[in-house]
Amino acid sequence: MTKKKFSSKKRAIDAALERIRTNRSDNHNAIEIANGIINGKLEELARGITLIESERLSDRPLAQLLLQEIKSFIEEKSHYSQIDTVRIGITGIPGVGKSTFIERLGLDLIKEGHRVAVLAVDPSSKRTGGSILGDKTRMDELAVQENAFIRPSPASDALGGVARATMEAVILCEAAGYNRIIVETVGVGQSETAVREMVDVFCLLLIGGAGDEVQGIKRGIVEMADLIIVHKSDGDNIAACASTAQAYINALHLFPPPPSGEKVDVLLASSIDGSGHSQIREEIDSLTKLWKESGWWSKQRANQNSDRMTTHARDLLLAQKMDNPKSALLWNKLQLEVTRGTRSAFSAAWDWVNSDSDK
Amino acid sequence: MTKKKFSSKKRAIDAALERIRTNRSDNHNAIEIANGIINGKLEELARGITLIESERLSDRPLAQLLLQEIKSFIEEKSHYSQIDTVRIGITGIPGVGKSTFIERLGLDLIKEGHRVAVLAVDPSSKRTGGSILGDKTRMDELAVQENAFIRPSPASDALGGVARATMEAVILCEAAGYNRIIVETVGVGQSETAVREMVDVFCLLLIGGAGDEVQGIKRGIVEMADLIIVHKSDGDNIAACASTAQAYINALHLFPPPPSGEKVDVLLASSIDGSGHSQIREEIDSLTKLWKESGWWSKQRANQNSDRMTTHARDLLLAQKMDNPKSALLWNKLQLEVTRGTRSAFSAAWDWVNSDSDK
Repeated sequence: MTKKKFSSKKRAIDAALERIRTNRSDNHNAIEIANGIINGKLEELARGITLIESERLSDRPLAQLLLQEIKSFIEEKSHYSQIDTVRIGITGIPGVGKSTFIERLGLDLIKEGHRVAVLAVDPSSKRTGGSILGDKTRMDELAVQENAFIRPSPASDALGGVARATMEAVILCEAAGYNRIIVETVGVGQSETAVREMVDVFCLLLIGGAGDEVQGIKRGIVEMADLIIVHKSDGDNIAACASTAQAYINALHLFPPPPSGEKVDVLLASSIDGSGHSQIREEIDSLTKLWKESGWWSKQRANQNSDRMTTHARDLLLAQKMDNPKSALLWNKLQLEVTRGTRSAFSAAWDWVNSDSDK
Repeated sequence: MTKKKFSSKKRAIDAALERIRTNRSDNHNAIEIANGIINGKLEELARGITLIESERLSDRPLAQLLLQEIKSFIEEKSHYSQIDTVRIGITGIPGVGKSTFIERLGLDLIKEGHRVAVLAVDPSSKRTGGSILGDKTRMDELAVQENAFIRPSPASDALGGVARATMEAVILCEAAGYNRIIVETVGVGQSETAVREMVDVFCLLLIGGAGDEVQGIKRGIVEMADLIIVHKSDGDNIAACASTAQAYINALHLFPPPPSGEKVDVLLASSIDGSGHSQIREEIDSLTKLWKESGWWSKQRANQNSDRMTTHARDLLLAQKMDNPKSALLWNKLQLEVTRGTRSAFSAAWDWVNSDSDK
């Protein structure tokens, strides 16, 4: 959340809200986009996602209206959206072959009768100017499918970050009738935890060659996975991949099991010859089935939603207060003391929160 | 942070602050406690910790004064407090022998000329009424040492939680001249991440018998450790412990290295015959030395402090807003929609934050 963006433009938001309350055309816009999405119009879905991704504070009220419309729809159709969609997270370092893997998975899911949306969270895209999925042609076979929707990573981290925008995009895609949502993230940044918190099944892609395959991955990611896939298991790599898979199978029983209670499987796959892919889809289906029976499925989704709401509320409140220049100045002063270790973090936070900077 | 405690008693805080501003005796109290702590008076240290642990909002202003006094002292003596203290976190499931381990470690550190403080974070103590370290006699040999200070877990989770109170207790202990601070936590709850974020070296205690030793530990804890110790390696357990240690050594290279860059060692130890303990102290010293050379030491502390300040500020702002009954009611309504999945978490957070509940 950028400080500047939040702004004492509280007034600007109020004005925008007022404008929307009184302006039939904005209301109409939101309803129009929502209807378009629900009726599966791709251009309206893209338009809706662009709206929720917007960095502009003044766009948020319309985005809120759109989500409100979608909410009414989900409430009516809740059995469909709540139960029949599966959100699949895919992470792994650059070079592990995420795009080819997702393309193969997506095409196979479509063959099975599903409708597939692919979204990406890549906070680095803003800095580097590049973006994963930025080049849709990396999944050109999937991209042309009628039942596929591919959306590159949002370019901004404003208003709660790309994870926020991606999660809202998931909701829009589900409302548009996509029932398999694949969320891609690079396993080297800050976004994996956020993606873990928005998907049902979190898959980690590794490459063969024990040890090297985790270079660059953030600590804690391996323990977050529901499913580990040793990718590029083809040609000369098969032996190395099998040995890596076995090493992980041996290692994983030394680590606590996932909160779901199901053990983490380690599978081999190639997206060139397609080997292992049917097993992966079966494993995802099997986890889905088991978790629905055990109650973990709905429990995880409820927890994820509730936790995210709290996180966003905290972030927004902080940004709101930080928006006051006097508050921001005091924050910097206190933070310096805290960073240098001469003041307790809570003591500084207390003084800051109770400071009269609003006046 | 409990909602009730925060209270519209903003007035109560203001009154307390006013009282302190005008009341010489409170000021005097804070200076008196601070001086007592700095001069190594145990009863003043205990009094100071009780004050910072207090659940009463009206006690906080005095606690702030005390921390302010301590801050001035730390600033003068910063070379001492900043560089020469080592904060050691110890986690592991009940039954792994944390108390006997800490007693042995503490006694050995004292023999080496250090002054040792032992603190505990156990959020379960409030619920169960029990407490780790609650029975000081579990460390009776250490407890009677002149250069040891043992403090049971605070009983409350108000005002930012036991982690907050424990971190401030670390600061007071360091000001009192304790240079080795051991923070104990049970590895089954929510507090391990908080402890990981307040210590320099985080040690995970396991027991021998591959697989079983992680039962009950929260996922992610193993990957947080800087040092893994297979404990109770004595008598008939030696073989099982050695085999467990070897399994972890084999497994750990499949996981990303700690952000410090140093690989995680797996050591065997017994706190009955003392075996392995000198190696553990050497490893802690060695990590300390390496990290200071690489700059990781001060970087980690600065990051920890800064992150904690942000977390506390967010929590306090949330609690402050939640304190308004109208706000709390709206939160519950929105949270229900979010939990049921009919509304996006950010959308709900946005509406809540921008609601006019303050009026």
